[in-house]
Amino acid sequence: MNITYNDAAKALNIAIEKAKALNIPVSIAVVDSGGHLIAFARLDSVYGVIDFAIKKARTAVMFGVDSEVMGSIISGADLQGYGMLNSNDGLLTVAGGVVIKNQGGNIIGAIASSGGTPEQDKEIANAAIVVFS
Amino acid sequence: MNITYNDAAKALNIAIEKAKALNIPVSIAVVDSGGHLIAFARLDSVYGVIDFAIKKARTAVMFGVDSEVMGSIISGADLQGYGMLNSNDGLLTVAGGVVIKNQGGNIIGAIASSGGTPEQDKEIANAAIVVFS
Amino acid sequence: MNITYNDAAKALNIAIEKAKALNIPVSIAVVDSGGHLIAFARLDSVYGVIDFAIKKARTAVMFGVDSEVMGSIISGADLQGYGMLNSNDGLLTVAGGVVIKNQGGNIIGAIASSGGTPEQDKEIANAAIVVFS
Amino acid sequence: MNITYNDAAKALNIAIEKAKALNIPVSIAVVDSGGHLIAFARLDSVYGVIDFAIKKARTAVMFGVDSEVMGSIISGADLQGYGMLNSNDGLLTVAGGVVIKNQGGNIIGAIASSGGTPEQDKEIANAAIVVFS
Repeated sequence: MNITYNDAAKALNIAIEKAKALNIPVSIAVVDSGGHLIAFARLDSVYGVIDFAIKKARTAVMFGVDSEVMGSIISGADLQGYGMLNSNDGLLTVAGGVVIKNQGGNIIGAIASSGGTPEQDKEIANAAIVVFS
Repeated sequence: MNITYNDAAKALNIAIEKAKALNIPVSIAVVDSGGHLIAFARLDSVYGVIDFAIKKARTAVMFGVDSEVMGSIISGADLQGYGMLNSNDGLLTVAGGVVIKNQGGNIIGAIASSGGTPEQDKEIANAAIVVFS
Repeated sequence: MNITYNDAAKALNIAIEKAKALNIPVSIAVVDSGGHLIAFARLDSVYGVIDFAIKKARTAVMFGVDSEVMGSIISGADLQGYGMLNSNDGLLTVAGGVVIKNQGGNIIGAIASSGGTPEQDKEIANAAIVVFS
Repeated sequence: MNITYNDAAKALNIAIEKAKALNIPVSIAVVDSGGHLIAFARLDSVYGVIDFAIKKARTAVMFGVDSEVMGSIISGADLQGYGMLNSNDGLLTVAGGVVIKNQGGNIIGAIASSGGTPEQDKEIANAAIVVFS
């Protein structure tokens, strides 16, 4: 199961509203279950965080856990974690990438924010997945 | 001068309406004057055309002409044109990538559609730049 | 807003004079606000630092802060920071890449030196941005 | 033998003067005998031709002939030439890349222009190698 464009657009818009309420210039990416981009908005953020948002979303969906959870798994491997971070064209395990599940609990995509603090980015991304719960 | 997110979102939405009116599953990308992504929507197209849309938009903005115009320039060089196509991480010179100019005539970004015929993609992209003219 | 060639050449020449005064064989790169090369000089440095100079300049402009400031942000994320370093075709967060702002405070590009110590490279790059202040 | 920075800067400046006299917005690259960048100027050209100029200069120096001569060699191989164009991270065999030789006839680098017609780019690059003859 893959998230549809309509649902991705809904999620993106909720995240955009949250980012505007927090007044933070972020980039927000929504990817499908295959990690491929489906909707994206750069709210006048610096362009360096475009790739951060996409990589956080891909990291979440490809391991089936929020981005910072994958970070904790890798940290447990200490220096050896470098190899994992370097895989799949580069993971990004800072908080802010969250998986999107459908009503049946299956992962259908992920959404990620980048440009704020890890906590702010996580808050923005989490706001957007309420719609699917 | 760079296109703002608000203007990019307006352009994207117009292109989305056009694509829905034509009933074609496309991907649409908006990039700024440096070729960096600012807004993106995949209307349930196959994911192979995501990169097509981004590369068409980048090709347009980096040479300052619509994507198929760059294609004509390269075609004039016969076999040697392949070297140009291979530059800049890969050009895509099929129609559908159009430059976005501000009122003063300066290029501020580009928008591209991919997933339809070259003519349809061009129609979708061109619909979106009316807002800036 | 993008730095013009004339201003980039001025900045480059000031940095070259500084490097000669310090008698260090460096490479110096100036990029525009989109991270694209605009002026470059390799003062008989080893060629390995060409990419260092370009990546430092791009790191500065794409995050809107001097290269080592981005390094400090990433260091705060411990091991997870490696993922950020791996993004955007590779960041370089050693000192020596500095943003260039216009009179209005907008970032119009960046200049970076590589080949000296981080402190020397920073001194060389900083000398060049005086012209815009 | 490698071209020094001083000689590369002289060549670049002559090419810049020629481009200004022709009033064409080009990018000009000088590489050493190993194909590594030594001096570069983007005279407010579109950024797509940065890579063209660098690839033309590298194509010239790595085969020891001007860029369009390599193009003629490849054209003689018809469709099979594609493979050659695709080698070495991409050749560019349009005119405008010329080898630089020292007094003894040894190739010490190359200079290339891009942004004009092939004939104009060749004229600009050729102007710059007079200094070494």
